Amino acid sequence: MRTIGNLKHLILYDTTLRDGAQGEGISFTAGDKLNITKKLDELGIDYIEAGNPGSNPKDMEYFKNVGKLKLKNSKLAAFGSTRRSNIKVYEDSNVISLLEAETPVVTIFGKSWDFHVESIIKTGLNENLRMIRDTIGFFKERGKEVIFDAEHFFDGYKFNSEYALGTLTAAQSAGADYLVLCDTNGGSFPNEIGDIVKTVSQRMEVPIGIHSHNDCGMAVANSIMAVLNGALQVQGTFNGYGERCGNANLCTIIPSLQIKGQYRMVSEKSMAGLTALSRYISEIANKKHNENDPYVGNHAFAHKGGMHIDAVLKEPRSYEHIPPELVGNERRILMSEVSGRSTILKRIQKLAPGLSKESPEVKEIIEKLKKLENEGYQFEGAESSFELLVKRYLGKGNEFFKVVDFKVWCDTGRSLLNSAGAVIKVEVNGVEEITTAEGDGPVNAIDRALRRALELFYPQLKKMRLADYKVRVLDTSQATAAKVRVHVESTDGELIWGTVGVSTNIIEASCFALVDSIEYFLGEWERKETKIHGYDNDSKDTGSTCGVG
Amino acid sequence: MRTIGNLKHLILYDTTLRDGAQGEGISFTAGDKLNITKKLDELGIDYIEAGNPGSNPKDMEYFKNVGKLKLKNSKLAAFGSTRRSNIKVYEDSNVISLLEAETPVVTIFGKSWDFHVESIIKTGLNENLRMIRDTIGFFKERGKEVIFDAEHFFDGYKFNSEYALGTLTAAQSAGADYLVLCDTNGGSFPNEIGDIVKTVSQRMEVPIGIHSHNDCGMAVANSIMAVLNGALQVQGTFNGYGERCGNANLCTIIPSLQIKGQYRMVSEKSMAGLTALSRYISEIANKKHNENDPYVGNHAFAHKGGMHIDAVLKEPRSYEHIPPELVGNERRILMSEVSGRSTILKRIQKLAPGLSKESPEVKEIIEKLKKLENEGYQFEGAESSFELLVKRYLGKGNEFFKVVDFKVWCDTGRSLLNSAGAVIKVEVNGVEEITTAEGDGPVNAIDRALRRALELFYPQLKKMRLADYKVRVLDTSQATAAKVRVHVESTDGELIWGTVGVSTNIIEASCFALVDSIEYFLGEWERKETKIHGYDNDSKDTGSTCGVG
Repeated sequence: MRTIGNLKHLILYDTTLRDGAQGEGISFTAGDKLNITKKLDELGIDYIEAGNPGSNPKDMEYFKNVGKLKLKNSKLAAFGSTRRSNIKVYEDSNVISLLEAETPVVTIFGKSWDFHVESIIKTGLNENLRMIRDTIGFFKERGKEVIFDAEHFFDGYKFNSEYALGTLTAAQSAGADYLVLCDTNGGSFPNEIGDIVKTVSQRMEVPIGIHSHNDCGMAVANSIMAVLNGALQVQGTFNGYGERCGNANLCTIIPSLQIKGQYRMVSEKSMAGLTALSRYISEIANKKHNENDPYVGNHAFAHKGGMHIDAVLKEPRSYEHIPPELVGNERRILMSEVSGRSTILKRIQKLAPGLSKESPEVKEIIEKLKKLENEGYQFEGAESSFELLVKRYLGKGNEFFKVVDFKVWCDTGRSLLNSAGAVIKVEVNGVEEITTAEGDGPVNAIDRALRRALELFYPQLKKMRLADYKVRVLDTSQATAAKVRVHVESTDGELIWGTVGVSTNIIEASCFALVDSIEYFLGEWERKETKIHGYDNDSKDTGSTCGVG
Repeated sequence: MRTIGNLKHLILYDTTLRDGAQGEGISFTAGDKLNITKKLDELGIDYIEAGNPGSNPKDMEYFKNVGKLKLKNSKLAAFGSTRRSNIKVYEDSNVISLLEAETPVVTIFGKSWDFHVESIIKTGLNENLRMIRDTIGFFKERGKEVIFDAEHFFDGYKFNSEYALGTLTAAQSAGADYLVLCDTNGGSFPNEIGDIVKTVSQRMEVPIGIHSHNDCGMAVANSIMAVLNGALQVQGTFNGYGERCGNANLCTIIPSLQIKGQYRMVSEKSMAGLTALSRYISEIANKKHNENDPYVGNHAFAHKGGMHIDAVLKEPRSYEHIPPELVGNERRILMSEVSGRSTILKRIQKLAPGLSKESPEVKEIIEKLKKLENEGYQFEGAESSFELLVKRYLGKGNEFFKVVDFKVWCDTGRSLLNSAGAVIKVEVNGVEEITTAEGDGPVNAIDRALRRALELFYPQLKKMRLADYKVRVLDTSQATAAKVRVHVESTDGELIWGTVGVSTNIIEASCFALVDSIEYFLGEWERKETKIHGYDNDSKDTGSTCGVG
């Protein structure tokens, strides 16, 4: 093991692009794969397993183009099987396609569980050993670095340890550079993994790696137990993507071992980009980011219980195992009935410093908050809507505008980009304005019509745009009559703010969230202008309203 | 530890209703809590920690009503802190409210990390020991079973093991029935947990429990390592709900230790209901079920890689660590570009047995499938839409109806339940029919109008209803102009089938999915009728179409 000062270097082997792509709902284009490769190289991943050219023709396109990236830190590996039984290695088209991928590294997986040899690929135990030796030998002769993935090693070891070790010996004798022990079915316990890795790494001369799956929810722990017992390489995927319950999550393993253990794998700067990188890969994979994920989830440093909040504001380490900024994440203080009055009070006091815990206004706002939460509103992540709620309640809302009326329609025979139309009437300081717009669907049409009308009065709205739009169906068993919650994120290029709307009518829910996002922006704009120009605008009575039910 | 034959009984302590409710986005009503309590009792949970009556008044309402449930297996625990410093225990209102909850069990958490005593609650180390003794003693004198949760025990032990152990000794001497070691910040590694639990359980006379959090992604592994090293009680939550990254997931721990270890905690029948129970709790919590979760997720036994699929169809244990039916889950074979032609071929052959791997039709269908997947379609879970795609391609679609034209509108000034309207014109066997309907939002209105029109021709549609409706915004950065995928599940009371539609227009995407769901139902109905009545209806050329772009 390489060491840097007192720190040990662990070899990171990423298989997001290959094993990760086996996860349900994941499908990368060749372009997606190139983008991810670049990011993994920048992070400092040692090996990137990029595809299986034999089984997926799309992967070959990737291998043809990846050379242009000029990777700085990572070596590329093509992944494939040992040769088929009873043929010559050079007659196996999958072996040849691995060669054609022209990667410096080839990862060969082979069977190490006797049951799989006899019942799945239905060949002889000795022939399987020859398949391992021949295939690894073939690539070693051609100057490749070869990593041997011993598929089902732990299951094999439990049923027939002699044979399982025999497959490793075969790979080692043929020149393999790493022997990677795979818990392919994800069924092993951390104590088993620790014990077996210890035994094997003492017996073998070639460095050992670990490849684990999450079917018992222990892929990360199993990887770490393997490392603590002698494994020098960890295989895993970003966000834990992978077949069934997924692979070991590198976003958890890397900070756990580097920030909390004695390892150094990536630079501090890269570590501080981990949350962003993890989200980037969620975006590319088109998967909802798992907000409960350790280190990189939005909830990872979010505090909700009243006592936790009080303590963490005094001393972060009281309820945070690491400082969130080390991985580019941040602390969040949530607002809800269990977060305690003090959190809600603090937010109210931001707007009305005079109020105390005992003020009847505070009690009524909390009642209103609970009522809205019961209706399906959720202000976590939509704090701007909460702020507007408080302002309106306190009579501090700035009535920038009022939606008097709208109408939305969509029908057949329209063009693709303008599949819906909307008419909206707004009122600003007693002046009514009616505008119309078309859009990609009814929500987009009403969004455009609303902006078009309001920009006449507030040209600064041109600086604001929507960054994110999400729909959550709240009670799916009510099918198309279900309530929906629309969550909108908006940005002026610097700040991002979230707002929320709830209704059984998706158009109306969207309208609520859009109106809040615009009103919040106008309020902040006015606050800044007031500061700059020194004038003070009397606050008005009620907030902007979306005129529906 | 109790044993049943060779099997050990582990005490299960569920805190979904208390610590689980601290998770972001989770809020249970008193009624929700009663429903969940009933289910946990039926499962066979030993202790249910149901709330913190001192900090959450809603919990008191629950404790008043829970007696009516007449629990068979579970004991209820109320949760609260040791008394505040420098007051008498009976002067502490939180202590009194714990008494008023009238539960047989009281769980008292106290500080075991000296840093927390001195810097967070700011009291003396000896006073903290007195707080533990006084509070536990108070409840023991009143005949309660008392569980002591040693908060931050592992962090405390690492910094000052003598003091951490001192807090346990204080609790033990005051009569605590269990000493639960908490990894409150979730920062410990499985080897540390194993070693510390071993040491502590040898030193203490009272049985040890484990309470772990998932901030390093290892809460399950840490719980299991604790059990293997002497812990007799495991605390956790359903679906791993809890503050930040969540608590140890009981849905993973229970089957891991019972099916794969030497423990017996719940009946086989209860175990076979685990997936359903986990989903039920997701529904009540109004959280998307985590489909990657071990054992109970929809992906847990889903196979996508071609080789995996071939193997698992021969021998399930080749890629499944347990038989899915033991936990009430099921095997799923996914369809995608990496699932290999053989899976897609099998589905095609169901409809057209004459086709082979080499048929140009099969190649073209796979091309079409890939094209649609690129556009955002996903046929995983929407196999009925895929079947219709194949039928239409093969000219075997039954053109039951055609949507000629539709128009949808919504505007202000409408009533809540009929906030949108739709007109739709369909054609059935050359006969046109135009109908109109109102609904809760535009999607509901078009759904009603479509059914109203089609029921005139196909009265059997009355037997079919929608069971689930989901919207996924595909590229959220495009905001309101983003593409959406609508996934619909329908049922006739016996079968459930899934269909999918994609468009930038949510109305259109919904229409695609609705049309597919109705057409699939009519096709299946005709197939059954043909069987029963012996007539054969010639298949027609094209499928039902939703007439939009």
